[in-house]
Amino acid sequence: MIRHLREAADLDAENATLILDTARELARLTGGREVKKLPTLRGRTVVNLFYEDSTRTRISFEAAAKRLSADVINFSAKGSSVSKGESLKDTALTLQAMGADAVVIRHGASGAPHRLANWVDGSVVNAGDGTHEHPTQALLDAFTMRERLGRLAGLNVTIVGDVLHSRVARSNVVLLGTLGAKVTLVGPPTLIPVDITNAEVSYDLDAVLPASDVVMMLRVQHERMSASYFPSAREYSRRYGMDGARMRRLPEHAIVMHPGPMNRGMEISPEVADSPRSTIVEQVANGVSVRMAVLYLLLGGK
Amino acid sequence: MIRHLREAADLDAENATLILDTARELARLTGGREVKKLPTLRGRTVVNLFYEDSTRTRISFEAAAKRLSADVINFSAKGSSVSKGESLKDTALTLQAMGADAVVIRHGASGAPHRLANWVDGSVVNAGDGTHEHPTQALLDAFTMRERLGRLAGLNVTIVGDVLHSRVARSNVVLLGTLGAKVTLVGPPTLIPVDITNAEVSYDLDAVLPASDVVMMLRVQHERMSASYFPSAREYSRRYGMDGARMRRLPEHAIVMHPGPMNRGMEISPEVADSPRSTIVEQVANGVSVRMAVLYLLLGGK
Amino acid sequence: MIRHLREAADLDAENATLILDTARELARLTGGREVKKLPTLRGRTVVNLFYEDSTRTRISFEAAAKRLSADVINFSAKGSSVSKGESLKDTALTLQAMGADAVVIRHGASGAPHRLANWVDGSVVNAGDGTHEHPTQALLDAFTMRERLGRLAGLNVTIVGDVLHSRVARSNVVLLGTLGAKVTLVGPPTLIPVDITNAEVSYDLDAVLPASDVVMMLRVQHERMSASYFPSAREYSRRYGMDGARMRRLPEHAIVMHPGPMNRGMEISPEVADSPRSTIVEQVANGVSVRMAVLYLLLGGK
Repeated sequence: MIRHLREAADLDAENATLILDTARELARLTGGREVKKLPTLRGRTVVNLFYEDSTRTRISFEAAAKRLSADVINFSAKGSSVSKGESLKDTALTLQAMGADAVVIRHGASGAPHRLANWVDGSVVNAGDGTHEHPTQALLDAFTMRERLGRLAGLNVTIVGDVLHSRVARSNVVLLGTLGAKVTLVGPPTLIPVDITNAEVSYDLDAVLPASDVVMMLRVQHERMSASYFPSAREYSRRYGMDGARMRRLPEHAIVMHPGPMNRGMEISPEVADSPRSTIVEQVANGVSVRMAVLYLLLGGK
Repeated sequence: MIRHLREAADLDAENATLILDTARELARLTGGREVKKLPTLRGRTVVNLFYEDSTRTRISFEAAAKRLSADVINFSAKGSSVSKGESLKDTALTLQAMGADAVVIRHGASGAPHRLANWVDGSVVNAGDGTHEHPTQALLDAFTMRERLGRLAGLNVTIVGDVLHSRVARSNVVLLGTLGAKVTLVGPPTLIPVDITNAEVSYDLDAVLPASDVVMMLRVQHERMSASYFPSAREYSRRYGMDGARMRRLPEHAIVMHPGPMNRGMEISPEVADSPRSTIVEQVANGVSVRMAVLYLLLGGK
Repeated sequence: MIRHLREAADLDAENATLILDTARELARLTGGREVKKLPTLRGRTVVNLFYEDSTRTRISFEAAAKRLSADVINFSAKGSSVSKGESLKDTALTLQAMGADAVVIRHGASGAPHRLANWVDGSVVNAGDGTHEHPTQALLDAFTMRERLGRLAGLNVTIVGDVLHSRVARSNVVLLGTLGAKVTLVGPPTLIPVDITNAEVSYDLDAVLPASDVVMMLRVQHERMSASYFPSAREYSRRYGMDGARMRRLPEHAIVMHPGPMNRGMEISPEVADSPRSTIVEQVANGVSVRMAVLYLLLGGK
C-alpha cells in the first residue's frame, strides 16, 4: 500500500479497489449495534490539520479515526501560530515531533499535501487542497456507485456544474478513469477546463441524461455566482439544475449524487434530493467507511 | 424509557424519577478517586451540535459522555456548512449517516430539537433551544433540591428574574409540576409570561421569601438590560436581587440556586453566592451526573 | 511531589530532576512503534483552559494527556461565559465541580495560575501566564540540553532577545539556576530587565558566543517591533539574530535552541534553523515527554 494519499493519481486500480473492499468490510464490522469500535489503531495519533473550515470533512475523518480507536487531535490553523506566519514546513515538523502518525490536511493552496509529505515520517491524507483534489471524496463516490450499481467499469458518469473550480470533479475524473468508468463533464463553457484528457465534455445536460448511469451534481459556490460566470442563479438552475423532470429522463437504474452540502432549489431540487435515486445520505455514511479504510491501510493496521 | 429529551414534558413522573435515581447511582460509582469511568457507552458516538456558544453546557455533556466511555464529536455550527445555508434537516441526515447515536443540540430557534428528532434514528437531547426549554438544567436543579432537602413533592420553589425569556424557568416550571413541587414566579411584570397555568405569580420578592424552600435566581442577560424592560441595573438589583438581607428572611433550611454563570452583584450578591445555602457549585457537579443518566438511559446502556 | 506547577520556583532540584528522569523513561516507553499509550491516567480528566490562542502548547498537552489515557476537554475561553464577564474564580469552581483532575491554564494575566490554584482541588499547570512564566517550556528546554550535552550543572546558557517580555526566558532563568547552569542574557538594553539576580547580562552577542554551550533565541514578537524598542527589524536581526557566521563562532559542541514558532530570517536564519546544532524539532518532541511526566507526577500516577 502507498504511504500517502495526496491525490487520486496516487492510487492504481489495485490499491483503489483494495480501499473500496476494505471499506466494505469495515462498514460490515462496525455498522451493527454491537461492535462499533475496532482496536486496530489504538495508540496511533491522527491530526486533523485544517487551514479552512470544513466541519463535515473534519468530523467524518474524526469519526473514522475514533472508530478505529486512534486518538484524534484537531488543529485548526485559524488563530494559531500558522496565522502568525509560521511556514507549513515548521508546522509539519512540529506535528511530526509530537508523534502524529497521520496528518489529514485541508488547505486553501493546491499542492499543500504534496509539500507536507516531504517533511513528515507519517502518512499524509489530502482532505481538499485549493481547487486541486479531494481524493477521499472520489473514493466515497466510487464506493457509493459500486454499492448501488454493482460495478464501476463501463459506467457512464456525468458530472455537472462548476467543474473548473471543483476539486471533487478533478479527483473523480482521475479515479473513475483508473477504475474504468467513462466520465462526461457538463457545465457552462466558461466553467469547463480546456485541457481535459480523460473525459468527454458537453454543454447540454438534457442530451446526456438518457445515457447516464450516474449524475453527480456539484455544489454551486454562491461566492462565485456574483462573478461573470453565470447569467443568473435562476438561469443556472434552469440550464444545469437537476429537477424532477430531468430525473425522469434518466435510465431507471440511474442514481443522482451530490457531495453536500446541497443548495436545495439551486443545483438540485428537493424532489430529487429526497428521492430514492438520491445517494446523498449514503455518501456521507460511506465517507466514514472509506476514510476508515484509508487510515487503516496507510497506517498499516492489522 | 423515552428516546428523546426534547422538553421537560417528555418526562412523566416515573421517567423523571428514574433519571434522578440513576444520576445518583452514577455519581456514586464515578465520584470516587478510583473508578471514574464506566464502560457503558463504549463504541457509541455522541455529537454535540452547537449553533450557539455555550462552553459550560458543552463540556458538561462532553464530560458526562466520556465518563461513560462514549466517543464525543464537537460540531460547532459557526463557520461550518450550516452557516453557508445548509438546512437543519440536511445537517441531521449527515450526522445520522456518520453514525451519531445521540445528538445534543443547542440552537437559537425554539423547537429545533423537535424538528431534529424527526430526521434521526438516534436520540436527541435538547441542550437549550431559543427561549423555549433547557430540560437537563431542570433535571439537575431537581436533583440538587432533592439531595439538599430530601424530597421534591410539596416544596415551595420561587424562580426570580426574567422568566419571559428564560428557557431554564420554563423547563423548571414543567418538571417541578410533574414532580409535585409548587412554583412561584417573581419578576418585573413585563418579564412574566401572561399565560402561566401551573405556577403562581408575584411581583414582590420580599413577600414570598419566608415561605420559600428554594429560591432560584435567573441570570440577567446584559443585552436585555438596555431594552426598556428595566428602569436600570441598579433598580433591578434593588428589587429582584438576592443579597444577604433577603437571604436572612428565608427559612433556615432554604437554599439559593443559580444556573450560572452569575453576575455577582447584580442578581446575586457575593455574600449569598459563597454562603452555605448556595448550591451553585453542586449544580455544576450534579449537571454532569444528570447528563450521564440521560445519555445512559436514552441510549439503552446496561 | 508538588501538587501544582505554577512557576519554575515551585520545583527544587530534586523534583525538577525527577521530572526530567520520568520524561526520559516515558519517552522510552511510548516512543517506539508498538507501545504508544500507557494506561496510567485512565479515568482522569485534564482540562485545557486557554484564555489565549496557543495551538502548539494546547496540542502538546493534549497529546501528552492522551498518551497517558486521560480524557481531555478543551475549554477555549473565547466566546464562552468567561467572555461574558464570569470571574476566573467561578470558572475554576465550575471546572472543579465537573471533575477536572488537572487544569492546564494559559492566561494573559501574570499570576492567574496562582489564583486558580486557590480554588481547585485538582492540580494546576501553568501553560503561560502573561509575561510571567511558562515552566513546562523551561523543563523541556532543560531536558533537551541534558539529552544533547549530557548534563546541566556548569553549562553556559545564553538567552538572546526580548527578555523583558519573555515568560520563556523568565522560567528558564529560574529553573536553570536551580539545576546549576549559568545563564547570560543578551539583548537591547531596553529589553533586559533591570532587577536580574541570577544571570549575567551582556549587550554584545558576539562577545559571549565563544563561551556558550547553549544559545537560546527568543521569538521576536512582531507586534512589539513597531514600538520604539528596536531601531528596525533589519537592525535587530543584524545585532541579535543568529546566522551562519555567528553559529560558526560557537564551540563545536554548542547547540542552538528556539521555543518556536520561528521567524526565519529574523531572529534565526534558515541555515541555523536547519543545521544539526539546532534542537528546535527535538524541543517539540521533548515537550510532549516532559508534559507527560508533569501530568503523571502531579496526578500521582502509578
